[in-house]
Amino acid sequence: MRVLALLDGTLADPDAPLIRVDDFGLMRGDGVFETILVVGGTPRELAPHLDRLARSAAMLDLPEPDRAAFERAVDLVLTNWTGGAEVALKLVYTRGVEGGDGTPTGFALGMDISPKVMAQRAEGIAAVTLDRGIEPGLMDRAPWLLLGAKSLSYAVNMAAIREAERRGAAEVVFTTSSGSVLEGPTSTLVMARGRTLTTPPAELGILPGTTQAALFRAAEREGWAVEVRPVDVAELYAADGVFLVSSVRKITRVHTLDGKALPDAADLHARLADLYESEY
Amino acid sequence: MRVLALLDGTLADPDAPLIRVDDFGLMRGDGVFETILVVGGTPRELAPHLDRLARSAAMLDLPEPDRAAFERAVDLVLTNWTGGAEVALKLVYTRGVEGGDGTPTGFALGMDISPKVMAQRAEGIAAVTLDRGIEPGLMDRAPWLLLGAKSLSYAVNMAAIREAERRGAAEVVFTTSSGSVLEGPTSTLVMARGRTLTTPPAELGILPGTTQAALFRAAEREGWAVEVRPVDVAELYAADGVFLVSSVRKITRVHTLDGKALPDAADLHARLADLYESEY
Repeated sequence: MRVLALLDGTLADPDAPLIRVDDFGLMRGDGVFETILVVGGTPRELAPHLDRLARSAAMLDLPEPDRAAFERAVDLVLTNWTGGAEVALKLVYTRGVEGGDGTPTGFALGMDISPKVMAQRAEGIAAVTLDRGIEPGLMDRAPWLLLGAKSLSYAVNMAAIREAERRGAAEVVFTTSSGSVLEGPTSTLVMARGRTLTTPPAELGILPGTTQAALFRAAEREGWAVEVRPVDVAELYAADGVFLVSSVRKITRVHTLDGKALPDAADLHARLADLYESEY
Repeated sequence: MRVLALLDGTLADPDAPLIRVDDFGLMRGDGVFETILVVGGTPRELAPHLDRLARSAAMLDLPEPDRAAFERAVDLVLTNWTGGAEVALKLVYTRGVEGGDGTPTGFALGMDISPKVMAQRAEGIAAVTLDRGIEPGLMDRAPWLLLGAKSLSYAVNMAAIREAERRGAAEVVFTTSSGSVLEGPTSTLVMARGRTLTTPPAELGILPGTTQAALFRAAEREGWAVEVRPVDVAELYAADGVFLVSSVRKITRVHTLDGKALPDAADLHARLADLYESEY
């Protein structure tokens, strides 16, 4: 099932064309997005997602998103949702049409969680490391590279996942050229060792994770240590568990990395999944 | 004026919505494009543009574009064009809609040349150098980064041009972190010194230029030397002329680089512009 709501507070048919060919979102990948998980009618981390949408928009010099209009569109989707308990809710915000009056294009689209994601949540995934071609310091030095913005220009992220599939895996752990861990193409990496959770810093040029933040909040409350620091690929093999976390995939464990089996983290995965759920 | 033709051989209204919100071209910048200059009803370098569209599509693992269908769409636009003598003709090809049958979305859109481009062709431009954050060798080592593919994920290219404008310039010369010249966000860099034209190699992770290739063909025929080799930024200041060339901008001279005036290349520009036009 899919429900589509626009920023003007109306519903639209998701199977009908809505976007003009000269929309900069299509022509140039010039826009930003968020994907929010909704469970039982309640969006998770809505405020952090809307905050991040605004940060991404600012990095692209887009007009500030109309937060109330996005909240209304979210409500409208959820009010009209008659599908399953979980919804993947996508917010999209583009620079609008070429030669237009500068009005951005924006919408909220609710979709079912794909069977593939449901299986990955339950069974875990094999991942491969792929060089993202960036080095520490680049984000600050070259803000026009939009590192850390969740833009619509995700062709590289999609190409990386196809490369993983060619290598018999489902997902990617991006690294710097010198082997420092970054993130997944659509997820944040979290490593567990003992009672410590670790994730790489956003300053490396990656997206601050909303789900990672929620998990860290819950973990800290339960007495875990959490740290944000650079992580070398070699550390992943020595960890008790490696996870790719995102709104829709929740806490997904990586059971195999670059063809090598990681230690069995099924129990640890269950504990972290419970921790994460305890936030809601 | 604008004329829009689809791959099925029909015309469509460019002011009406055509694209679904779940088109991967919009949602993920997951598609490829070309921009072709048409003069007096004849598209320039059509075959090289269609070749490059196919190469870009292959780099993104898209189905091979239907060349005959794109040629038909081009014809249809031009047959129905009643505007000025020059047309900017854009070909777009995306992965299609999510959950669809895999049929790509494709169209040809004819547009007027913008007054801004007309002015830049005549008067030249100020440009700034901006770090593209890539190093030689990355393209071969990490093909999933899609370096050298003309994908719809152009948010960085657009952000770079906005950064140039913030610095009082109109255009960008991307460089490697170590100061080797790459390309413009939507153009190829050509340097002239004596009777030699030089452009950086595509192997650095940049797009092979169709207009640069046409210019080099014409120049060689007229006895110029042409070379494809790495160029340091410092060399640009010592050149007789620096040009950003693309289908729609043709041969545009850079009169100012990073705030410093370059040698007056107005006469040289006129000679190269004539050379380029002699190809048609």
